[in-house]
Amino acid sequence: MAQEKKAWGGRFDKPLDGFIEEFGASLPIDRRMWEEDVRGSIAHVRMLAAQGIVGAEDASRIEDGLDAIGCAIRDDSFVFDLGDEDIHMSIERALIDKVGAVGGKLHTARSRNDQVALDARMHSRSAAVSLARACLALQGTLLARAEEHLGAVMPGYTHLQKAQPVLLSHHLLAYVWMLARDFSRVRHAYDAADAMPLGAAALAGTPFPIDRAAVASTLGFASVVPNSMDAVSDRDFLLDLTYACALAMVHLSRLCEEIVLWSSEEFGFVSLDDAYATGSSIMPQKKNPDVAELTRGKTGRVVGDLTALLVTLKALPLAYNKDMQEDKEAAFDASDTLRDCLRAVRGMVETMTFDVSRMRSASLGGFMAATDLADHLAARGMPFREAHEIVGGVVLACEREGRTLQDLTLEELRAASPAFGDDVLSALDIDAVVARRTSEGGTGHDRVREQIDAVRGVLRLEAEWLDGVTG
Amino acid sequence: MAQEKKAWGGRFDKPLDGFIEEFGASLPIDRRMWEEDVRGSIAHVRMLAAQGIVGAEDASRIEDGLDAIGCAIRDDSFVFDLGDEDIHMSIERALIDKVGAVGGKLHTARSRNDQVALDARMHSRSAAVSLARACLALQGTLLARAEEHLGAVMPGYTHLQKAQPVLLSHHLLAYVWMLARDFSRVRHAYDAADAMPLGAAALAGTPFPIDRAAVASTLGFASVVPNSMDAVSDRDFLLDLTYACALAMVHLSRLCEEIVLWSSEEFGFVSLDDAYATGSSIMPQKKNPDVAELTRGKTGRVVGDLTALLVTLKALPLAYNKDMQEDKEAAFDASDTLRDCLRAVRGMVETMTFDVSRMRSASLGGFMAATDLADHLAARGMPFREAHEIVGGVVLACEREGRTLQDLTLEELRAASPAFGDDVLSALDIDAVVARRTSEGGTGHDRVREQIDAVRGVLRLEAEWLDGVTG
Amino acid sequence: MAQEKKAWGGRFDKPLDGFIEEFGASLPIDRRMWEEDVRGSIAHVRMLAAQGIVGAEDASRIEDGLDAIGCAIRDDSFVFDLGDEDIHMSIERALIDKVGAVGGKLHTARSRNDQVALDARMHSRSAAVSLARACLALQGTLLARAEEHLGAVMPGYTHLQKAQPVLLSHHLLAYVWMLARDFSRVRHAYDAADAMPLGAAALAGTPFPIDRAAVASTLGFASVVPNSMDAVSDRDFLLDLTYACALAMVHLSRLCEEIVLWSSEEFGFVSLDDAYATGSSIMPQKKNPDVAELTRGKTGRVVGDLTALLVTLKALPLAYNKDMQEDKEAAFDASDTLRDCLRAVRGMVETMTFDVSRMRSASLGGFMAATDLADHLAARGMPFREAHEIVGGVVLACEREGRTLQDLTLEELRAASPAFGDDVLSALDIDAVVARRTSEGGTGHDRVREQIDAVRGVLRLEAEWLDGVTG
Amino acid sequence: MAQEKKAWGGRFDKPLDGFIEEFGASLPIDRRMWEEDVRGSIAHVRMLAAQGIVGAEDASRIEDGLDAIGCAIRDDSFVFDLGDEDIHMSIERALIDKVGAVGGKLHTARSRNDQVALDARMHSRSAAVSLARACLALQGTLLARAEEHLGAVMPGYTHLQKAQPVLLSHHLLAYVWMLARDFSRVRHAYDAADAMPLGAAALAGTPFPIDRAAVASTLGFASVVPNSMDAVSDRDFLLDLTYACALAMVHLSRLCEEIVLWSSEEFGFVSLDDAYATGSSIMPQKKNPDVAELTRGKTGRVVGDLTALLVTLKALPLAYNKDMQEDKEAAFDASDTLRDCLRAVRGMVETMTFDVSRMRSASLGGFMAATDLADHLAARGMPFREAHEIVGGVVLACEREGRTLQDLTLEELRAASPAFGDDVLSALDIDAVVARRTSEGGTGHDRVREQIDAVRGVLRLEAEWLDGVTG
Repeated sequence: MAQEKKAWGGRFDKPLDGFIEEFGASLPIDRRMWEEDVRGSIAHVRMLAAQGIVGAEDASRIEDGLDAIGCAIRDDSFVFDLGDEDIHMSIERALIDKVGAVGGKLHTARSRNDQVALDARMHSRSAAVSLARACLALQGTLLARAEEHLGAVMPGYTHLQKAQPVLLSHHLLAYVWMLARDFSRVRHAYDAADAMPLGAAALAGTPFPIDRAAVASTLGFASVVPNSMDAVSDRDFLLDLTYACALAMVHLSRLCEEIVLWSSEEFGFVSLDDAYATGSSIMPQKKNPDVAELTRGKTGRVVGDLTALLVTLKALPLAYNKDMQEDKEAAFDASDTLRDCLRAVRGMVETMTFDVSRMRSASLGGFMAATDLADHLAARGMPFREAHEIVGGVVLACEREGRTLQDLTLEELRAASPAFGDDVLSALDIDAVVARRTSEGGTGHDRVREQIDAVRGVLRLEAEWLDGVTG
Repeated sequence: MAQEKKAWGGRFDKPLDGFIEEFGASLPIDRRMWEEDVRGSIAHVRMLAAQGIVGAEDASRIEDGLDAIGCAIRDDSFVFDLGDEDIHMSIERALIDKVGAVGGKLHTARSRNDQVALDARMHSRSAAVSLARACLALQGTLLARAEEHLGAVMPGYTHLQKAQPVLLSHHLLAYVWMLARDFSRVRHAYDAADAMPLGAAALAGTPFPIDRAAVASTLGFASVVPNSMDAVSDRDFLLDLTYACALAMVHLSRLCEEIVLWSSEEFGFVSLDDAYATGSSIMPQKKNPDVAELTRGKTGRVVGDLTALLVTLKALPLAYNKDMQEDKEAAFDASDTLRDCLRAVRGMVETMTFDVSRMRSASLGGFMAATDLADHLAARGMPFREAHEIVGGVVLACEREGRTLQDLTLEELRAASPAFGDDVLSALDIDAVVARRTSEGGTGHDRVREQIDAVRGVLRLEAEWLDGVTG
Repeated sequence: MAQEKKAWGGRFDKPLDGFIEEFGASLPIDRRMWEEDVRGSIAHVRMLAAQGIVGAEDASRIEDGLDAIGCAIRDDSFVFDLGDEDIHMSIERALIDKVGAVGGKLHTARSRNDQVALDARMHSRSAAVSLARACLALQGTLLARAEEHLGAVMPGYTHLQKAQPVLLSHHLLAYVWMLARDFSRVRHAYDAADAMPLGAAALAGTPFPIDRAAVASTLGFASVVPNSMDAVSDRDFLLDLTYACALAMVHLSRLCEEIVLWSSEEFGFVSLDDAYATGSSIMPQKKNPDVAELTRGKTGRVVGDLTALLVTLKALPLAYNKDMQEDKEAAFDASDTLRDCLRAVRGMVETMTFDVSRMRSASLGGFMAATDLADHLAARGMPFREAHEIVGGVVLACEREGRTLQDLTLEELRAASPAFGDDVLSALDIDAVVARRTSEGGTGHDRVREQIDAVRGVLRLEAEWLDGVTG
Repeated sequence: MAQEKKAWGGRFDKPLDGFIEEFGASLPIDRRMWEEDVRGSIAHVRMLAAQGIVGAEDASRIEDGLDAIGCAIRDDSFVFDLGDEDIHMSIERALIDKVGAVGGKLHTARSRNDQVALDARMHSRSAAVSLARACLALQGTLLARAEEHLGAVMPGYTHLQKAQPVLLSHHLLAYVWMLARDFSRVRHAYDAADAMPLGAAALAGTPFPIDRAAVASTLGFASVVPNSMDAVSDRDFLLDLTYACALAMVHLSRLCEEIVLWSSEEFGFVSLDDAYATGSSIMPQKKNPDVAELTRGKTGRVVGDLTALLVTLKALPLAYNKDMQEDKEAAFDASDTLRDCLRAVRGMVETMTFDVSRMRSASLGGFMAATDLADHLAARGMPFREAHEIVGGVVLACEREGRTLQDLTLEELRAASPAFGDDVLSALDIDAVVARRTSEGGTGHDRVREQIDAVRGVLRLEAEWLDGVTG
């Protein structure tokens, strides 16, 4: 890496230390924004030409040069030099090499401070779009599995204790709603990024008669950042994206925890496809839910990314500080990780097999009809607290004798309380228990069908947003 | 604390261990939700009556009882017993004490799982509203200070090095825009909380013919949570609120860092009012910017709250788990802290005195007109990179000789480059440097006036939202 | 709260704003350090007298006054006033009230900056000692349970898939070793706190001829902090303590996750004592492992405390800054939380019942002898990779046919590979599988007995340290 | 990447999905542990041979193969294939390619679970050693700068307000002590890693008659991990290392904050060497303290790494889970980042120029002799609180009149209090103020010289440890 003169070298009489050059270089991280940088520069130079700040011919040579550089990077024929510090300098230097000193005019009315903000915002929008797509895809898969198994009963848990039987579809749909909130947070992050910062220059704006709205329009931005100091020091859009990723990862960690549980021999509710499980190098019998575990484990990484960004920005005075160079790696790592996890989990969910008969028989255990027994008494006028107390006693007796609630006779129940009605035994049938949850949003079959319709509507709106957005 | 029988004690034949009772009690934290609990219970019992699930007279006695309990808590005449575990049990037990066994009917078609979700959502909405108010108030104060000092010039910094002169108003407005994003995040958090979970019961819905929409309407909720398992396991609304708090605290930490700097003897840009500063018990001369420091320090606390919530929720299977009891303390601490800090910072900003003449003279140092000198050359057709190089050399020479740019003669400048025009000296006047930043969002005076109008419009919209919202 | 003149009020001509007084007060948090404050002040005044800085009679009156204040606080007859800002001012003001102006001499050669550092270090030492005690107690309980069940076999898991059978004792001892590392980290935190900061005064030391070593000796400190600026700005000892707590909580979260799993109906390995479990207000059959869940949930809180401290200290210039007032709450919350969780978990572990026969029968499933089958082949000279491949095929065939490895005949095995020896069937016996793990630290019975002896030795050393330490 | 048969493929009848293979591969992260993997395998196979588990000739072929692979990787002639999942499989596969099926014997009595633990521990030890070296180097540089400027006076700050004058050397030494604690934490992290896990096999130990102590001795480990389940599930050593890094980064962030402040025009205490500063692409006059800012910013990244690890490990049941694959990247990133920052900061500190005359004149402002004025009164018998009040009034009067304390006459002081003695004016001389801080650890010149000796002793001990340790 040659110790060449930097673009900012005028007032310096010694080159940068070699290790420090490497230490300070953001190129390994920000080179992935090359396309945004090229597109942003083209939009900028067109505007400069339209406003008469740069001659039409110069602008045209610059644009051609940028196009050629873009092609070279896409082709992998572009040579990056760590001495260039960052992607902006890499491209500008290549431009000057290609079109001569006129290339230097590209930097008119622009600083790296607003340029990096622009690139990061464009990249952040793209990342949000690709996350939204992956989120929608997983929602679609969960919905499809829910529709496929409509009617299958499984134990619903609280405290990992069997609580009340629910439909498998109902359980899967709970995750679709979580992901709908994730989609919405990703969309907010998109909106947060969707304001154009260029024209802020270093921090104060520029004397050149630029047209910021034109640049915004060329690049598909909804608005222009209204304060130049804020434009170069704001990284909220990266935080919003990273937060959306962190919470979505927490959601995936919950689903993955369940899949790990369900694929244990003890639960035995699902069996993973061989293409989505791995073995052990020492134990020949093992089939491990690696995808679920790794996704759950990666939650830490993304929460760490969010922490990193918050810590980095704490107590920074205005406007730009070099600390902020650390912003992109965390945000990009968070969105890359979430995108990959959404994809991996989707494949796993799509291909896994539910053992619905095992789920059904598991639903008979655990005294899960006890609430209905208490409801039965409450419906007959007994205060719920009393009913709860009586049924608690019945459960305790059964447990001691190794019996289930379904084993009890009407007489035995009446011995516990004469208030039990003749139809109490039907209260204990597990399908009936599920069917009875007819309250809005409940696990009753019709309610779940209703919910599936509602989910379809949500996914349609998500898809429409994706169709209309600048990625 | 008496080891009385719990509401769930039917199947247990030993009381809870005394230390464990205390360990598990959430009452010290959740008692602050008493008002939400009472209001939610009243809405619930009215609906039960309207649906014929509970008789009108019973409902009326329950409602009267709840009203009386509410008054007693407000009066501080209500006695809380840690043995009650949580606010829900405290109130229910008091109700039964007051109105007899009929009070037990209140729990029909409801579980603590959906009840705590309801209370937390209502409390979260209130917290969001009070944060939004405090945020608007600080924005108003910053705007007022910006309008008061229109025209005052100060150094703009990047890397804490003097960069270009800016208007003090422009600098202050940068924070108003940050706070506008905070307002918007708080509003999203409000919306996240604004869905009614009651009716989910333990996790699966309820067989009782309840009317969830009616409860939602009584309590001013925009919608009903559409999946009962999600209703009891979702804490996204608390996360969204806490995240909004964490990022707002990071913003305040940046403002406070600047106030600490500005009130140092070295900067000397502001002087804090005696009512907003403290002294030292040993050093009689000290006047410390405690409010700014403490706010900056409390950023850690709120980032910690966010981390806490994310960690707690990681890998929890559906539906409710006791881990989630830890949700409220972190979220409430975050919103309390931010609310107090917004208020404290507002008072500090409102009362501090800007030393505008010190700011002005500081603006003459640091070669801050150098960019304009380069722009001057660029405007005359020189590629910006070349201009930058030449001016860098001029700065270095001045620095060595202890001169400012304003000390230079036209001849000296022309010796550095014959391209300098006759009007170059006017490029160096500090007011002119500011005035020249006429790009949209720049620090030029007219642009800042424009910005003030835009900010007023934003604050008006914020106030309108606050007027219409259920707090 | 009266707006009285502060101890530092000389250069101020306006009282502190009422809300700001409350905002800045640390009294609600630091009053718990009253005992350290009193003891530290007594040690200080004795030294002042011994050095002739304060007269013997004055010193004696001050010491008597401090004793009386200590008694009053212990008795709860002391009235705290939030206007006093912090515990140091509360006590000093009370002292002057009690003994007159001479009480003001206590502050000679001391600042609140070094005083708060002293109190925090003493409190941190006590907290470390009480954590170490609680840690040792839980280790003891785990050891006792391990000894009680020596010989009981359970499935060992990796990826929550059955891997190889292990002794329950071996599994429990793994946690004892984790806790031994926690003990050691707590002990390091103690050592980190065990240096005496007083004498640093505000930041620079003091002109008075003080004797820091004497104060250190009175208060049982191992050394004196060697740099006065570091003495008032160092909070590493609180970080070390909080980190020790965070990692210990992560360890407890792992144990608690297992207890939640084990007490599920699906695993059924343990049953919690009624005194350590709770029920549901709606589902009469529920018995929830609340203690395990809540402890797991509180992990978030303590990780949040650690994050909070790191964020708060980031980028603070020397020496003392008000931000640091936020240090104690996080550190104390972390140590209180861990101490309570250690106690709660200990009670739960002590009283829970292991269903060893259920564990044993679970050990027959999951093909857990497969590794031994492969080892059998490897021991007969086959490269392990080949053996692994062959046994993998055997497992797959069994799984398809619903058979266990123990169901296979020698002939069937030989059909898979003629290399199986005559004694292969004995390789499949589950007790033999366990017994065979005779490598050092393995789960073989003798090795576990050895381990129990080693653990006893470790606990003895821990107890010895506790006996010798200043708490 | 070919979908070849995996080493664990026996019980699978479908290959792993291509994306999942990539998703799950740790090779890009763990390939940096190749040397540890090779060394560990050699130690293992030698022991297998010594114990007669593998024949001497086979062992010798395996060792030669491993040596050749090590050379190939060092030479960059080794071809990594992502399909190999991790570095262990890469090397094992290459070994079998090279020496034939006998290579498979290397895996006897070993699993990837204990193998990865071994490699990570060895790598962690090396990382700790290189951090310790870098830490010592920075301490040495700070000490050298402190010795060079002995006698230079600068303002000491609390709350960023001038408090009392201190020696620059004293200030720099405060950081040496912080770094000494960092060194000690890194050393603890080394010790945490310094126990040998191999022999735990998958989780339960192994039936082969291995000699774990021999392997430990070959690889320079202090002990053997005493419980096989703990051996494969413990990652405390990585946490300890990452925590040490996080706190050290917080320390560096404090030093860097000060360097940013000091190199501002307002403070002007230091000027950075051109080789350690950068310029602006738009503002020709800028000289930015990038190294200090970037280091301060990277604090976030390392705190994020620590959070990530804690979150990942939360609630993982024993023994190994795939989540733990995420452990290395965070820990390595933390130690790489700290190592680079220590080096960068060292270069910056070594080459920066202190403007001692500017520091000295800054020491005259800010009424920093006020404490001495109050001490003067206290020494004459006035209670300190009264003295403080009187001097506070004197400061306020001076401030209003724009005078310094040194401007006051004896008469003026006596008007404020007749208790001022004849020698009071000498109390105000700034060198005398410093010289007077003669308490142990204070900023008085002799005390600082004493401190330098103590620091030299500490650095000597650190160097001795480094000389003796296995890296």
